[in-house]
Amino acid sequence: MRVAILAHEQFPDRAKTALGVLRYADHDVVAVLDRDNPGEQVSSFVPDVQDAPIVTGMDDLEPDEVETLLIGIAPIGGGLEESWRADVRTALEYGCDVVSGLHYFLSEDEEFARLAAENGCELRDVRRPPDDLTVSDGVAGDVDAEVILTVGTDCSVGKMTTTMELARDAREAGYDAAVIPTGQTGIMIEGWGNPVDRVVSDFTAGAVEEMIVERGDEYDYLFVEGQGSIVHPAYSAVTCGILHGAMPDRLVLCHDAGREAIHGYESFPLPSIPSYVDLYESLAAPVSEASVVAGALNTAGLDDDAARDALEEYAAELDAPATDVIRFGTDDLLEVLL
Amino acid sequence: MRVAILAHEQFPDRAKTALGVLRYADHDVVAVLDRDNPGEQVSSFVPDVQDAPIVTGMDDLEPDEVETLLIGIAPIGGGLEESWRADVRTALEYGCDVVSGLHYFLSEDEEFARLAAENGCELRDVRRPPDDLTVSDGVAGDVDAEVILTVGTDCSVGKMTTTMELARDAREAGYDAAVIPTGQTGIMIEGWGNPVDRVVSDFTAGAVEEMIVERGDEYDYLFVEGQGSIVHPAYSAVTCGILHGAMPDRLVLCHDAGREAIHGYESFPLPSIPSYVDLYESLAAPVSEASVVAGALNTAGLDDDAARDALEEYAAELDAPATDVIRFGTDDLLEVLL
Repeated sequence: MRVAILAHEQFPDRAKTALGVLRYADHDVVAVLDRDNPGEQVSSFVPDVQDAPIVTGMDDLEPDEVETLLIGIAPIGGGLEESWRADVRTALEYGCDVVSGLHYFLSEDEEFARLAAENGCELRDVRRPPDDLTVSDGVAGDVDAEVILTVGTDCSVGKMTTTMELARDAREAGYDAAVIPTGQTGIMIEGWGNPVDRVVSDFTAGAVEEMIVERGDEYDYLFVEGQGSIVHPAYSAVTCGILHGAMPDRLVLCHDAGREAIHGYESFPLPSIPSYVDLYESLAAPVSEASVVAGALNTAGLDDDAARDALEEYAAELDAPATDVIRFGTDDLLEVLL
Repeated sequence: MRVAILAHEQFPDRAKTALGVLRYADHDVVAVLDRDNPGEQVSSFVPDVQDAPIVTGMDDLEPDEVETLLIGIAPIGGGLEESWRADVRTALEYGCDVVSGLHYFLSEDEEFARLAAENGCELRDVRRPPDDLTVSDGVAGDVDAEVILTVGTDCSVGKMTTTMELARDAREAGYDAAVIPTGQTGIMIEGWGNPVDRVVSDFTAGAVEEMIVERGDEYDYLFVEGQGSIVHPAYSAVTCGILHGAMPDRLVLCHDAGREAIHGYESFPLPSIPSYVDLYESLAAPVSEASVVAGALNTAGLDDDAARDALEEYAAELDAPATDVIRFGTDDLLEVLL
């Protein structure tokens, strides 16, 4: 699929979805739209992902160059920036589908809905849950696949990245592995999935179970993208629903080196690493026995020596192997997971 | 408020909402609609709640006798039974408001919406969450009130009943206490509240926090109606969101004597009582230190001697006072809670 990714004024540092797609998706990215850096290349900013030219807008592309426009950024609040309207409009006039993870549903925008109908394109709001979700039946544990869930000490500590790296490397090593995407970036990368943080709260576990059951007998390993943290004052419900809905066999605890308090909720200090292990395992146990068997630490802010020290300490606290999957690869983790 | 309660063919045993309203609400119940038992009295079936005549339908009441019709039962799936339509229609023609906890929203029913508009009445779907809910700010712990949350070993073990009994008796003893309702029956009884199991999963904690913040500085004690169980394969997300959103000071663990597995999920045995205590306390701790300080046991299926034995054993497992609040009153619990 030939895609353009909209990331105006936020590429690369505040464009988590755009970067995730560039790094992990199978799509052929023909351009990144960023009016701040036209004429540049993705590789000038981010060396280790798929390269693509950066252009000012959809007008810079020819209609036959691109099939889909992905909205690769999200402003706080998840609204539609009016300055993006022209790009979406042009995409639809070109006959492109448009995929968005905004809270603002493009399919409910009158102009976009009309243009999509006129041009035979699809407006795909990945944050709108399917209408047929329901409560969990408690059966995710029955699938053949080994289910591996990433859990975190906080939001934005690398759960999506770790999930994608592990699944990709497992597949490259010849294992039959799939990702179960639970958030907007994962869904855009994989091209399917339920946005678990947007479903009716009673259906949280059910929305995960439905995906596990759908894929669980086709693969040997399912890597489930975790969300939030079980100690997060706002988002723990989603974390708990994923833990019980996925009924994982193994957990990978993700953490950001040096983080000491919940991001944005600084009056809540993070508990110790061993107490996270106890909490995730004891909460999982009545529904599905699961152990924290590995750790993933984001050491991006540290030099190599400091990173190795941090990893050694993290592994000791976990009593399990740990690595930074971006910096040092996934070998140490896959060895205990597969 | 003069209310009629619809409970056709399910009164009293399968009419939890109707019974809750009869038992706890301040409303003046002028009739229960049950076409199976016209001419009887509520008191012939349930001795210890507000009495009211049982009639066949709204036609048996005069327009000036009643102000509001409450739907007091819910079929599996939460749809509208077509055989109830005539009663809702008559209520609206009488100028009554209609309050419903069905998943089927009466306000979206074309005929009801038209009749409500014509007669100046309100269709109040208590299961439809307000549009302005959002994520938690993590501030419920800042309110002046002591927050007391009922938690459970499973669904339907007495959390709503215990909450209502404790709050009522605390008020009667002169304490300034309020209920924070989180489910449809609680909302119908109290006349306000957020249906926490129907909100967007990311807003679960926020929906509870909003209520705590709204009432928390006006009262000395808030009794929060818990939902589900932290070990429930389907509903634990809601339980976890309430635990962290309410930031309780004290927990009351509710249990049904003799229950050994999750109701409807019989392959999941209940953990031991001490492990529930550990789990609720350790999950609460990173967000808000809370202790299980009392237990409420439903002993309805036991004779007096067996009930006392069961309570003694339950209190020992909890290492805290325990009682059956319906059978033996709330004194033992209020002593440690207030």
